[in-house]
Amino acid sequence: MREVLEYIEQNQQRFLEELKDFIRIPSVSAQSAHDTDVQKCATWLKDHLKNLGLHAEIIETKGHPIVRAQGGNSNSQNDTPPKRLIIYGHYDVQPDDPLDQWKSPPFEPEIRDGFLYARGATDDKGQLFCHIKAVEALLRTRGKLPCEVLFLVEGEEETNGDSLADYIRQQKPELAQNLSGVVISDCSMYDENTPAITYGLRGIVAMEVQVKGPIKDVHSGTYGGVVGNPATALANIIAQCISADGRILIPGFYDDVRQLEDFERDNYAKLNFDDQNLKKELSLRGLFGERNFTTLERAWARPTFEINGIFGGYTGQGNKTIIPATANAKITMRLVADQDPKKIGKLVKDYLQAICPDYVNIQVSEPTGEKPVLIDIHDSLVQVGMEALKQGFEQDAAYIRCGGSIPVVDTFWRELQKCVLLMGFGLDTDGAHSPNERFRVQSFFKGIKTSAWLLDNV
Amino acid sequence: MREVLEYIEQNQQRFLEELKDFIRIPSVSAQSAHDTDVQKCATWLKDHLKNLGLHAEIIETKGHPIVRAQGGNSNSQNDTPPKRLIIYGHYDVQPDDPLDQWKSPPFEPEIRDGFLYARGATDDKGQLFCHIKAVEALLRTRGKLPCEVLFLVEGEEETNGDSLADYIRQQKPELAQNLSGVVISDCSMYDENTPAITYGLRGIVAMEVQVKGPIKDVHSGTYGGVVGNPATALANIIAQCISADGRILIPGFYDDVRQLEDFERDNYAKLNFDDQNLKKELSLRGLFGERNFTTLERAWARPTFEINGIFGGYTGQGNKTIIPATANAKITMRLVADQDPKKIGKLVKDYLQAICPDYVNIQVSEPTGEKPVLIDIHDSLVQVGMEALKQGFEQDAAYIRCGGSIPVVDTFWRELQKCVLLMGFGLDTDGAHSPNERFRVQSFFKGIKTSAWLLDNV
Repeated sequence: MREVLEYIEQNQQRFLEELKDFIRIPSVSAQSAHDTDVQKCATWLKDHLKNLGLHAEIIETKGHPIVRAQGGNSNSQNDTPPKRLIIYGHYDVQPDDPLDQWKSPPFEPEIRDGFLYARGATDDKGQLFCHIKAVEALLRTRGKLPCEVLFLVEGEEETNGDSLADYIRQQKPELAQNLSGVVISDCSMYDENTPAITYGLRGIVAMEVQVKGPIKDVHSGTYGGVVGNPATALANIIAQCISADGRILIPGFYDDVRQLEDFERDNYAKLNFDDQNLKKELSLRGLFGERNFTTLERAWARPTFEINGIFGGYTGQGNKTIIPATANAKITMRLVADQDPKKIGKLVKDYLQAICPDYVNIQVSEPTGEKPVLIDIHDSLVQVGMEALKQGFEQDAAYIRCGGSIPVVDTFWRELQKCVLLMGFGLDTDGAHSPNERFRVQSFFKGIKTSAWLLDNV
Repeated sequence: MREVLEYIEQNQQRFLEELKDFIRIPSVSAQSAHDTDVQKCATWLKDHLKNLGLHAEIIETKGHPIVRAQGGNSNSQNDTPPKRLIIYGHYDVQPDDPLDQWKSPPFEPEIRDGFLYARGATDDKGQLFCHIKAVEALLRTRGKLPCEVLFLVEGEEETNGDSLADYIRQQKPELAQNLSGVVISDCSMYDENTPAITYGLRGIVAMEVQVKGPIKDVHSGTYGGVVGNPATALANIIAQCISADGRILIPGFYDDVRQLEDFERDNYAKLNFDDQNLKKELSLRGLFGERNFTTLERAWARPTFEINGIFGGYTGQGNKTIIPATANAKITMRLVADQDPKKIGKLVKDYLQAICPDYVNIQVSEPTGEKPVLIDIHDSLVQVGMEALKQGFEQDAAYIRCGGSIPVVDTFWRELQKCVLLMGFGLDTDGAHSPNERFRVQSFFKGIKTSAWLLDNV
């Protein structure tokens, strides 16, 4: 690896300039005004991968195109089939508003205090580019790759498009061939000193509830005590879903929850999460959640029940003495292994309907969801990944989970039945969907080294 | 009374035309664009009362003027001081929007199907005009009034102005002299066949609650299970205030509630309120409220706890997976005798603060309120009022209460310590604050006769 690492060291300024070029293309997938930019970005990426010597192509979809690029050790002289890794990423980015909160223009990358500031810097152009430059370093120094690599880079991640999922399903037999696993760098390190493998993601179930009372808002003097209030009814319904101390009260909700294993609790404890710091950062009076679980345990390995939005009746200034016609709540629940979104969605919908008081009607939308993911950390790819991070970042890596959901992980996992290695080079403080998004320059260089080590040892 | 009633019969078409003139002046007190109309209306009314032979004047206030007009039996030949009645009304009206829902223009009165349609028809120009025309009939047929009459007509009722309350407090000794009571017709009959004296009004307490969680909306994946959700906390708080079956759970809330007397329950039962009709009218799945009380008992004589509005977090289309920074509720409670708004306001505010979970902050606005009113139906003025309604409407009158609040009633009651006689000539279906407001023409004529009979027998 010595000459590979030297190549990386010698070329890192050029790598950074190339990443800036990639970032300058405003590939905002959610805004149709940027459709040609998205197309341009896909072409730029395809050309870039082709110039490295990969077999690169653009795959048109009903939405934004997928960039696919393949290369490997076809010169392999023995008969064992070559190992293969899929490397996933996305070239599309979030919108840039609110524009007035950016210190430098979102699509004119600027380095300040060791960070590269721009939309897409960390999510996901910067992280994806680590793998691309690792492939370059291996190819330029050795003339070939130590394993087969297949880049699948989508342009619909920020719009929850399903073109890539469709493609994976269609191409399943070909994609699964000789596959060791899927590598994704679209997430975070534990903290700036601790690289990590994310081996668990929470799933999600979402639904909307509308409680309906009188056909129109009515006078609370005339009808109070006679006509039921949808807002108090909704409050009573919600209070029967989750207690004030964080226990979800829906019968059966916890049935399939996989309990934390001892080694997980030990690992999380070692991370020394700072509760006081979180309280301070978010100006919280106190932390929340189930007893007998630490903060990281609750955030990573326990399900939740949240109201994302609630509304009904008069919400303007002053008073309006009405009983509102309706009250509404947007509900999402985070799920953990082995909860099934379909099963939980039905369970919760049935429960909400069953506990609704008989003086109001309730309407619950059809639940939608994503499955939770829990990767076996004993998989050899995870072990190689841990070592690669240690080599690249010169720090021991941690096993962590993530409280959020990354739908594509479940798609790869379910369709290809191979380990999905989530190695994030970003930081939670990178501001992925916010103004002044950034990516630590050192993490970019360390990420390239990590990827090169990983490809060489898979 | 024969010649008085004949005079009314013979002049009723002219009375109706005069009422239309009164109504044509768009005296919308809430809209400054109508300030000159409000002034014009006060002048029209003062002149009209003066032409009847009353001592009429305009009393300027810091808001809209009060019209005051006085007349009596100054020719009385014996030494007993003349009895006096204050007749209250208001000449201002509600705004006319939404204008496109009116079948005929709001300030061009039109008679259709036995109703006079216009803004102010029932609230309160038409009802007030009954008393004015009764005074005319008595004066024109007898040359004098059977008792002293003092009209106090305000122009700030629809804006909750306090000029009249200030005036009453200032002029208290003079107003209270020889006073038998105050007559107000700014409410409703029980139904179109049943005239009624309203002897009870509910009071009210209002406050706003804000539950504060994280300093900004945060990601429900990253922080769910760790950061408390203000919306679920608010739901839990509300659910500890009122049970799903309508019982208010705040300790001490019912302590001062005066229990219904047997004769009241009997009277209400005789009114045969039609629950099914109400359900149908408002498309309700079922009626709401405390066990062991009938619909009318709950609407008139039991306190309530209502959410008039609730809001927090994301309320647009689709999902946004956040834990909201805040959740808010606008709360009003209807009170009954002998609950005190100040005492209840403090009780509820303290309770809300006490039950707030320790992971969120709560902010409760300073409660505001109005006292409930309960008039002694054994007062001789009430008895005369019941008989007057029977004479005017040729129907037995009922004793009813009203679930709403009319602040001026409490002011008269508290300051002057005399019976306040609420005799409504309107109907709940008149659409007082809605498009196509109307007043039944027959109720106008019957109201005039009722008032004449009342003044003659007080």
